[in-house]
Amino acid sequence: MSANLKPSENRRKRSDLSPFFEPDVVAVFGSIKDSAGAGYGVVRNMLEFGFRGKIYPINPSCDEVFGLKAYPDLDKVAESIDLAMVIIPPPAVPEVIEQCARRGIKSVIIGTEGFAEAGEAGAELQKQVVDIAHRRGIRIIGPNTIGILNSGNGLITNPYFIGYDNVPKGSIAYSSQSGFLSNAAHHLGDSAYPISKMCDFGNKCDIDEVEFLDFVMDDPETKVISMHVEGVRDGRAFLEACREAVKKKPVLALKAGNSEAGIRAASSHTGSLAMDDQVYACALKQAGVIRVDDWEEYWEIPRVFSSQTLPRGKRIAIVTMTGGAGVLATDAAVSAGLEIASFTSLTVDRLERLNQRLAKNPIDLGPTMVVMESPFSILDEVLTPVLIDANVDCAVIVINGYMFEENPSAIDRLHQVVQHAAKPVTIFIYGTRMCWLEEASRKLASFGLAVYRNLNTAVKALGVAAQYSDSLGE
Amino acid sequence: MSANLKPSENRRKRSDLSPFFEPDVVAVFGSIKDSAGAGYGVVRNMLEFGFRGKIYPINPSCDEVFGLKAYPDLDKVAESIDLAMVIIPPPAVPEVIEQCARRGIKSVIIGTEGFAEAGEAGAELQKQVVDIAHRRGIRIIGPNTIGILNSGNGLITNPYFIGYDNVPKGSIAYSSQSGFLSNAAHHLGDSAYPISKMCDFGNKCDIDEVEFLDFVMDDPETKVISMHVEGVRDGRAFLEACREAVKKKPVLALKAGNSEAGIRAASSHTGSLAMDDQVYACALKQAGVIRVDDWEEYWEIPRVFSSQTLPRGKRIAIVTMTGGAGVLATDAAVSAGLEIASFTSLTVDRLERLNQRLAKNPIDLGPTMVVMESPFSILDEVLTPVLIDANVDCAVIVINGYMFEENPSAIDRLHQVVQHAAKPVTIFIYGTRMCWLEEASRKLASFGLAVYRNLNTAVKALGVAAQYSDSLGE
Repeated sequence: MSANLKPSENRRKRSDLSPFFEPDVVAVFGSIKDSAGAGYGVVRNMLEFGFRGKIYPINPSCDEVFGLKAYPDLDKVAESIDLAMVIIPPPAVPEVIEQCARRGIKSVIIGTEGFAEAGEAGAELQKQVVDIAHRRGIRIIGPNTIGILNSGNGLITNPYFIGYDNVPKGSIAYSSQSGFLSNAAHHLGDSAYPISKMCDFGNKCDIDEVEFLDFVMDDPETKVISMHVEGVRDGRAFLEACREAVKKKPVLALKAGNSEAGIRAASSHTGSLAMDDQVYACALKQAGVIRVDDWEEYWEIPRVFSSQTLPRGKRIAIVTMTGGAGVLATDAAVSAGLEIASFTSLTVDRLERLNQRLAKNPIDLGPTMVVMESPFSILDEVLTPVLIDANVDCAVIVINGYMFEENPSAIDRLHQVVQHAAKPVTIFIYGTRMCWLEEASRKLASFGLAVYRNLNTAVKALGVAAQYSDSLGE
Repeated sequence: MSANLKPSENRRKRSDLSPFFEPDVVAVFGSIKDSAGAGYGVVRNMLEFGFRGKIYPINPSCDEVFGLKAYPDLDKVAESIDLAMVIIPPPAVPEVIEQCARRGIKSVIIGTEGFAEAGEAGAELQKQVVDIAHRRGIRIIGPNTIGILNSGNGLITNPYFIGYDNVPKGSIAYSSQSGFLSNAAHHLGDSAYPISKMCDFGNKCDIDEVEFLDFVMDDPETKVISMHVEGVRDGRAFLEACREAVKKKPVLALKAGNSEAGIRAASSHTGSLAMDDQVYACALKQAGVIRVDDWEEYWEIPRVFSSQTLPRGKRIAIVTMTGGAGVLATDAAVSAGLEIASFTSLTVDRLERLNQRLAKNPIDLGPTMVVMESPFSILDEVLTPVLIDANVDCAVIVINGYMFEENPSAIDRLHQVVQHAAKPVTIFIYGTRMCWLEEASRKLASFGLAVYRNLNTAVKALGVAAQYSDSLGE
């Protein structure tokens, strides 16, 4: 704790991180010599993702990078600077923080590794940095972090080569204590994750989940918050922020270090304090936070909140092109706390008129589809009555991705049917070629459909949505 | 039950399915008019996958397909036929079975849907087919199935367009009661699943898991068996076959219908009998079968047995390029019944000489890699002592797929280190582009490495291997 800023005495004076997420002018400290340089990487990513503000590379040994003039230090920059991203060797960091203070910069991200997570000397250095920041009124994210991302203004502070074409824009806010659960390591572009803000807290010497929650709970761009947590600094403040946030939008948490060995590993990763998993689970539940079970759920479950309405109950309809998946989806639904909907007699009649065998839940379209000229018309004809059925609160559709390859217009039709019903629907696509699945996933997502590549996650997402919806009613 | 052949009185006269899996001559009954025809699909797939035997399309209204002469009925074929694949309208099936009987065919796969799973009339028709088969000494797989696959001779009876380039050859035998868990619905080619045999039992009017187990437990091409089961017909015989099989090779089972609603769904999918999940779980465990939890595990867990040796214990080393994943892998290992290995002092010394921070488990390579010219050399230097450490039984490696994009030769080096150690290793690759991951996965697999795209599954696979290994020692 000594290496961290103390929580302010009345921390529920809510925090505002907009100086970090909405800067007009950013200074980037780090090597720009070649493509391996951290400063080079940050500037490249900001330019590629279309950062709307101004960038000042700061480096004493190079004059320019990507056509941007580089400055040896801040004192040579005339303009006022809002945010500094610092990735330079640890011993040089304190002096740069002083330099920032002299120029009135109040927001600094320290990307550099080798602080509290690296042993005693690093912890001592981190304490030194924190002391300067505290004395000079500077707020810090990090150290040991890739920093933040804002899809709204193209701000990204990640120094690594990412490879994806653009920052997907959307309404999910992700926070983490690791580059692994950030824009540095996951295929956000290929999988079309709809993102509003991201933050990797790293060692959390100052800013942590509490202030991030404060910020994103009122962020109009954000509809759902997904957090990866290895440890919290101030449990009381954290739970208080969670309680406030869940009144406004769903909050999901992946708690890493849920075994004794895992807690030890977390402590050596980011210097996180041990946190008893049982106590944590209980407290989070009381605060209304929904716990997810693994890193894939951390990424995927929020999709349902981003594009779909909340269900009014927990009765699910399962519409599938393959009977085997229907059985597995039923199991998954029960285990996610959902109930298999019993259709009204009106719906049963309409389904029976299409085909005697369709009038049950799960609805196995397979046998009917194989005898039809246009397999997609049966999907329309079945979905329409099922989704407006008063006994149905949500639905999962299990569909072969190849169908969209053969019938590109089918996505639009599917979207219309789902939109008309105004009930949450998730779509699981399967198939024999990954390229078909990826292409279809992106297209479905672009129509605002919640598409999944894992059947259990597609179903569990609806269970989580029902759970959140239910908690609001209480 | 009335629609099925009765189990023979002494069924432990072991069954031999080689007439199904190793035919020299196959007759295909079904429409060959155009690419939507079932017969057309079967013939196309067999030709594309290089079936080594002879194919006779049987169809009264067309003369040829893909340059193969088609015959109006079997009586016009001079050659003796080993196997018939039948996908024609249900009412026509009994007569074709009689035709097969007249020509001495003993093995028939009935692909057609619309039998016992479709209601009373279908059940009656199925009974009729079974009666003929019983009387004439014909064995049946199906109805309502895509049938079988043998990677060794290119035999595939699936009528659907698959899209993947070839049948991956290998040593996993998969069985299922659904096209969804078969070669018709999963990206076997893109994901390079190493397959020996596959069988979809469909309605199981005759041949079921018991005979499949009998066959593959002694199949020299098969090292591991993965089964999807909705219900079993003769529990005693099934468990007996399981007990015999697990003495020879690992048997995994995904039991669908593990909730009451799921059981009802299974019954309407393949007419499976209800099976109490608790009773089933207990019996399978006693028989030594390892239960997997979802369809992804059904596909993925067997990989570890296919390419890796069995671990001698349950102590895992975790070597990761990202600390966050190290913590999550630790949690996953504990939950999979593994222990986090404590390295010998010799290993600790060697790791400390590389870098003070590397000498703990999980080993976070990240901070060391970022300061090195060639990040892969540290992976070599760390893996070599860790894998030969006497306190280490297995290892998971967490690696960014982009590394292989930058250093294609690294895969060969990694393979050499793993092979030298002769301990099971799984590799989890992550990254920001799917194409990198897919390419790297296939290359790693081609070198005989067990590669995973899901961290938890990569770790759980080692836990399952340790569990199986342990059961052999008892």
